[in-house]
Amino acid sequence: MNKTKPTLFTTLSPALLNLYDISSATVIIIDVLRATSTIATALFNGAKAVIPVDSVSRCIEIGKQIHGITAGERDGKVAEGLIHGNSPFEYPREFIEGRTLVLTTTNGTRLLQMALDKGAKEIITGSFPNLSAVCDHLAEKKQNVILGCAAWKDRVNMEDMLFAGAVISKIRKHFSINCDSSHLAETIYKKAEKDLFGFMKKNEASHYHRLMGFGLEKDIRYCLTADGANVLPIYDNGTLVTK
Amino acid sequence: MNKTKPTLFTTLSPALLNLYDISSATVIIIDVLRATSTIATALFNGAKAVIPVDSVSRCIEIGKQIHGITAGERDGKVAEGLIHGNSPFEYPREFIEGRTLVLTTTNGTRLLQMALDKGAKEIITGSFPNLSAVCDHLAEKKQNVILGCAAWKDRVNMEDMLFAGAVISKIRKHFSINCDSSHLAETIYKKAEKDLFGFMKKNEASHYHRLMGFGLEKDIRYCLTADGANVLPIYDNGTLVTK
Repeated sequence: MNKTKPTLFTTLSPALLNLYDISSATVIIIDVLRATSTIATALFNGAKAVIPVDSVSRCIEIGKQIHGITAGERDGKVAEGLIHGNSPFEYPREFIEGRTLVLTTTNGTRLLQMALDKGAKEIITGSFPNLSAVCDHLAEKKQNVILGCAAWKDRVNMEDMLFAGAVISKIRKHFSINCDSSHLAETIYKKAEKDLFGFMKKNEASHYHRLMGFGLEKDIRYCLTADGANVLPIYDNGTLVTK
Repeated sequence: MNKTKPTLFTTLSPALLNLYDISSATVIIIDVLRATSTIATALFNGAKAVIPVDSVSRCIEIGKQIHGITAGERDGKVAEGLIHGNSPFEYPREFIEGRTLVLTTTNGTRLLQMALDKGAKEIITGSFPNLSAVCDHLAEKKQNVILGCAAWKDRVNMEDMLFAGAVISKIRKHFSINCDSSHLAETIYKKAEKDLFGFMKKNEASHYHRLMGFGLEKDIRYCLTADGANVLPIYDNGTLVTK
């Protein structure tokens, strides 16, 4: 193990984030289905910024203040009082360009808030649609990394672990990785990478079933496809923006 | 999914145990390297009982009271003040038969105490050496199951997840499993089952490196081998005993 390389750890649930020192690390917020996929998509399609907030009431409040688009879900559905949902397909260029999205979700925005409260050195969001942008940034930046899976109400989920594994498989040579979660994530990803959708289906991923139940196969397939919205959302003073 | 089947969940870290209702469940304490492997081995070799305790001072105190054998480790080494360690090879029949082992470990005994405090309906310990006994019991008992990985200071580890996967691969048909951790564990196990030791080595399991560093390859190989000490340790009023 090369001691001069920065470290990389994966936290499979927000409940495990406090086991790690994040003050010197870039924390990647991973909420594949669907918050961070939607954030990448909105920014790729020209949104001015995405403001992640941790409650519906705060979403409505900020939306009014800045004339933003309020959006979010609770338990996979549009939250009461908000106009838009958490599907990347709700944010095509003709709708979102030049506008600001105020977004609240069950898991992803909550984890982002936790990382912020715990003093992360840098926070970015990751998803398959912006996989390469995330990997390029981490490889160039050369600082410690925490791959933070948003999971589902603290329960480990398959798709966020798959994304962590995808990142690791691409950038492992740049990091010192003494972390079983990371090695497990990479192993799972390598087994799944040829057909992520089929892997989720075959292995009965809970989120696969939940979203299929809502008729959202198109969302799942998009959110498991690499580089469809290849931007790097960086958290800066309350908002996610691209460099 | 058959609604009449009992449920099965896997918790990859003690820090996730509180997400589940364990009051109607059998909780399997899994600490493959090495606490629960050693517990099975001591009981298989005729120990009267194993008393799991959560501190070194309590281990010494109870050891004196009952003239038991005090044993335990902290960070993989014999804890200061205790005579014996956490290796299954320290407890052959000629030494342990008819005697009581008072055991404290970094992770396994702590998780057992947590399950007890949270009111688990039944607590048993599981490891590869007693894999079949655990599976037979769960399949016969037909009540809800929590596979509780002891992990390493709350960080997810490979070997406990592999054991959870081994159990699931054998008894899945008896249970309703809506749990990504369980499906991931089974997937990992199926990839690894032909050579668990080789899998741990190849995938750089942190505990593999730690124990190999102490010269304990023999322990690792034994603890990854099925049914070498095929008994069912059940927690009953402060002690682990076999039925």
